Amino acid sequence: MDWGQEAQQRLAKIAACSAAGPGVTRLPYTPEHSAALEQISDWMRRAGLHPQLDAAATLVGRSSAPSNEAAVLLGSHQDSVIEGGRYDGIMGVVIGCLALERLASEGTRLPFPVEVLAFADEEGVRFPTALVGSRALAGRFDPSVLDMRDGEGVTLRTALSEFGGRPDKIASEARNKNAVRAYLELHIEQGPMLEQDNAAVGIVTGICGIERNSVSFVGETGHAGTVPMQGRRDALVAASEFVVKIHDAARNIDGLRATIGTLALKPAAVNAIPREAALTLEIRALSDAARQEFAGAAQVIGTEIAAKRDVSFDMAKTYEQLAVPCASGLIDTLELAARAAGHRAPLLPSGATHDASAMADLCDISMLFLRCKDGLSHRPEEYASAEDMAAAIDVTCAFLRRLAAE
Amino acid sequence: MDWGQEAQQRLAKIAACSAAGPGVTRLPYTPEHSAALEQISDWMRRAGLHPQLDAAATLVGRSSAPSNEAAVLLGSHQDSVIEGGRYDGIMGVVIGCLALERLASEGTRLPFPVEVLAFADEEGVRFPTALVGSRALAGRFDPSVLDMRDGEGVTLRTALSEFGGRPDKIASEARNKNAVRAYLELHIEQGPMLEQDNAAVGIVTGICGIERNSVSFVGETGHAGTVPMQGRRDALVAASEFVVKIHDAARNIDGLRATIGTLALKPAAVNAIPREAALTLEIRALSDAARQEFAGAAQVIGTEIAAKRDVSFDMAKTYEQLAVPCASGLIDTLELAARAAGHRAPLLPSGATHDASAMADLCDISMLFLRCKDGLSHRPEEYASAEDMAAAIDVTCAFLRRLAAE
Repeated sequence: MDWGQEAQQRLAKIAACSAAGPGVTRLPYTPEHSAALEQISDWMRRAGLHPQLDAAATLVGRSSAPSNEAAVLLGSHQDSVIEGGRYDGIMGVVIGCLALERLASEGTRLPFPVEVLAFADEEGVRFPTALVGSRALAGRFDPSVLDMRDGEGVTLRTALSEFGGRPDKIASEARNKNAVRAYLELHIEQGPMLEQDNAAVGIVTGICGIERNSVSFVGETGHAGTVPMQGRRDALVAASEFVVKIHDAARNIDGLRATIGTLALKPAAVNAIPREAALTLEIRALSDAARQEFAGAAQVIGTEIAAKRDVSFDMAKTYEQLAVPCASGLIDTLELAARAAGHRAPLLPSGATHDASAMADLCDISMLFLRCKDGLSHRPEEYASAEDMAAAIDVTCAFLRRLAAE
Repeated sequence: MDWGQEAQQRLAKIAACSAAGPGVTRLPYTPEHSAALEQISDWMRRAGLHPQLDAAATLVGRSSAPSNEAAVLLGSHQDSVIEGGRYDGIMGVVIGCLALERLASEGTRLPFPVEVLAFADEEGVRFPTALVGSRALAGRFDPSVLDMRDGEGVTLRTALSEFGGRPDKIASEARNKNAVRAYLELHIEQGPMLEQDNAAVGIVTGICGIERNSVSFVGETGHAGTVPMQGRRDALVAASEFVVKIHDAARNIDGLRATIGTLALKPAAVNAIPREAALTLEIRALSDAARQEFAGAAQVIGTEIAAKRDVSFDMAKTYEQLAVPCASGLIDTLELAARAAGHRAPLLPSGATHDASAMADLCDISMLFLRCKDGLSHRPEEYASAEDMAAAIDVTCAFLRRLAAE
């Protein structure tokens, strides 16, 4: 069996479980989600697992190994963004199933229970929340999200009930920490680092912390023809200097990412000096201290520019999520597994959030990233090769064998 | 008679010819316009003029002096922007009438016909065109604008007809160039230069040329968390460097004004690297050569930034209006008039367009600017003092007396 080719074929087939339009659109609790679960259930059975939908609509496939040992969990999410690709999320479910199918076909019996998890909603596209399934397992489910509504006005409670979930039982899905040994998530990198490093797979050191800041510069508007340059208090000029300085400062800090993704002007007229420029500054880093230090430096940069350009400056944090390190013991095991399987697997951080972020509240977490073409994700062009998926299956099998031997 | 106080009182009274809301909203061909023309007609009659609505709805008040001499025209526009002030435009009509009323009261008889003009629409707020009245007099009326529609779907043709204009006769309002000697427009500065220079009035050297450019930088989007800083092709960072460099370059060029008033990003998301930044660059200068040279420099700046930041750059001119110099003979006459009236009147350019821009196609033009508080215009706070308006009336009277003596 060519396991990489098999993964590619399964991903091609399940990509058809999609709403109309380019690429894959598979939102949670929809007919497309339901169709996908039929295929995933089949994969799970072929791997010797028993699929069951839990209260949060996570499809859980569990092996029949003795349950007095703590379980090892594999997986990722089944959903996509709108007009996304066929790898993000679902590939982790495919690889988890294939690795177990391969171990079984080779006669390997693991001494602990294994589960493959297909979470319903990680992307957070349909409802203004996400990670409901992984948070439920970790005992961090917040029942208030059940009242959130999608774009059609349907509540999460209703969508979940009609899909076969049990909203009122979600809290009871919380696992006993002693019953879970580790979570391994397999996911495309969604960035260019492995491709640049010429590596099929990489071992994630941790999931970056994130903060978002709302930044504004306020000066004075005026007629573009009648106000001389010297007296201007142009908010866009100040904001622009901030954008350049923040970007260039972030380039010098290893592993830190700073992005100004939105910028809005008032007034926004061809012949008016901008009075107000409002922008968002997102900072991500594996080190919370480095991130917070950079935010402090941004405050200083903004304040200096405001003084020089005669405008006011304000920067306020609107969101913060701490970094989640991957367990060092699991990183070691993945490194040994990769070596045993003959694959180079460089270490890299995850700049994006994953189900693993929520699972960290339950157990040790680890992630294996796969190289993706041109670093692209969330687009129909998203691509991972059969060879790289074969490498990930190799490493996953070796990882489970090492855990069995430890 | 305190002519400045009288001007202030007339402006306060006609400010009531306004749609509801803060400040003055007097759009052309509306009941407010009609109510304003009643008051203006009365002012014209008090100045010995004979008011008549022309085909383009310009209220023309003409003296009964011998018509074998070329006429001198004074005035400005009656309309305001939405929620504008009580001086912009209409003040020129008030001062024109009061200057002639004062000369008459002093027994001065001018040897040439004089007209005060109250143009219907200079601001271009209601229809996507403006200067219809002044262009008509200059023989530059474009009949295709009659099909333009306002926000309610009413055509300019209909609005003008119902107001008492004669759309089909507008072309015949073109004046014989030999029958017009000069146009003097009186207007608030709409900028801070006279206030900074501590002068009540200023003599305009010319009306700046204007060009507008559509500028875009295109890079590549990506996830704010997964794409390292080093490989980014961030369109906003490039555009921001452009904004700062253009602004700082323009500061070093006397009389030139460069404004980036709009900037739009795609995508515009807190966690996405901007792929595209589209902005407008407006450049104004009294010297067309200096303006064009600056546009060329902007091309070079943009190209250099694009190369450095690995994005593409495009800059295309979307609009151009050549500079209109004021007639040097009339500038001299205004300078002598100001001196005779005992007022210091510095020279300054007009960064904004006025009816005088269109009148330049008919005759020699000149403009007298009045100091306005904090350089503000197009806002309810717009203000000119009675003392400054008295100075303008002094200078206008002296100007007409000098023309009579030449």
